[in-house]
Amino acid sequence: MPKTITAAMLAIGDELLSGRTRDKNIGNLAAFLTVHGIDLKEVRIVADEKAAIVEALNAIRTKYDLVFTSGGIGPTHDDITADAVAAAFDVTIDHHAQAMSLLEEHYASRDIEFTDARKRMARIPQGAELIANPVSVAPGFKISNVHVMAGVPAVFQAMLDQVSKDLPAGIPIHSKSVICPHGEGTIGGPLAQIQKENQDVSIGSYPKFDGERFSTEIIVRGRNWDRLETVCKQVETMLAGIH
Amino acid sequence: MPKTITAAMLAIGDELLSGRTRDKNIGNLAAFLTVHGIDLKEVRIVADEKAAIVEALNAIRTKYDLVFTSGGIGPTHDDITADAVAAAFDVTIDHHAQAMSLLEEHYASRDIEFTDARKRMARIPQGAELIANPVSVAPGFKISNVHVMAGVPAVFQAMLDQVSKDLPAGIPIHSKSVICPHGEGTIGGPLAQIQKENQDVSIGSYPKFDGERFSTEIIVRGRNWDRLETVCKQVETMLAGIH
Repeated sequence: MPKTITAAMLAIGDELLSGRTRDKNIGNLAAFLTVHGIDLKEVRIVADEKAAIVEALNAIRTKYDLVFTSGGIGPTHDDITADAVAAAFDVTIDHHAQAMSLLEEHYASRDIEFTDARKRMARIPQGAELIANPVSVAPGFKISNVHVMAGVPAVFQAMLDQVSKDLPAGIPIHSKSVICPHGEGTIGGPLAQIQKENQDVSIGSYPKFDGERFSTEIIVRGRNWDRLETVCKQVETMLAGIH
Repeated sequence: MPKTITAAMLAIGDELLSGRTRDKNIGNLAAFLTVHGIDLKEVRIVADEKAAIVEALNAIRTKYDLVFTSGGIGPTHDDITADAVAAAFDVTIDHHAQAMSLLEEHYASRDIEFTDARKRMARIPQGAELIANPVSVAPGFKISNVHVMAGVPAVFQAMLDQVSKDLPAGIPIHSKSVICPHGEGTIGGPLAQIQKENQDVSIGSYPKFDGERFSTEIIVRGRNWDRLETVCKQVETMLAGIH
């Protein structure tokens, strides 16, 4: 059986920690990786501070197979992700020839000045490969197992589509859900028993609160579809016995 | 000048990492702390795995003044946060007398059986104080600088309201926004110059993409309102000079 592929995400940006912007990329990446059979194990959000980015990145890039970052690769002074990534890998950073020509051509065709600020977006750590940006040209990049991508959700998603063909193939994780009208407290005991007897699947129980009453969605996840169906039937039989 | 108060959040739950649930608590906590003048410096999301929770919690609780966790305090087998927190602090955990009587009374009044699963919600690490839950009774708890709260957003928010009166008073951070019709590449150079000359405020620049064009929202943040107004005027003057 092939080994499980693990991943982590580092979302970068003061605006995520001030509440000004509600992150959308974490949930999108999580859903994307699940479809690809890759286990997202950890997410960190840090501010636009070089030391914080370097520390977090070095912690997760050595611990997980794949890392994805979002944010901080635009043209302004608070976009310091590329420099921080170079520092984390202890490599130099400079204007990348291919990135410079992509951007130069893009701005020339629109009669927009290719300012020094815009040239910042071509700064790429030594040894990195570009990740194409079909939305707004300024590229992301991949260095070792780290994928550095934009924070604007439409661009993050487009870059994710670009890298998807090069990701290692995991074993897809399936999930099946059973809706349960009872609260978690009613089903907690018997559900734990089913989990104990079926260690090859993961049974999650998610309370919903409609303002008055709790109900529960039970999600069974695993890599073997037949086993999911079997365990879901056990859950349904258990629920049918509760009055 | 009083010292800055820092905080971190640990969001716990497999469902956040599989993409099944889009987290709402991070953004709510971020906005809440900003209003209270407390700097949220880092967020981590980990799965319902004891070792992962213990490691993340021990890393952030020693680094920041305050910690808030969400998730994993319900009645089912995958709710392991209280046990993990006890392990992180190396204290014992048992059914808490006051939590037991709160829950016992609640379920008796609704003629609902007080199952062993429901009793799990009264398991509180030794030395912790309860955080009241006005929505659905089962309490959170505070141990040292760590606030352990529910994952259901309505309950998380209600617990946050409960703890707000006991939080240390930070110096509120104000923000003022300037809408800019130009992309970041056009304003990046002069904006960096304004930031360099005004180190007591933090100037953020947030690209927006409407599917065709980029525009930019410039946010100036700081603890002195007069200084914000002065810097915003400098930004507006700079923008007025761009054609």
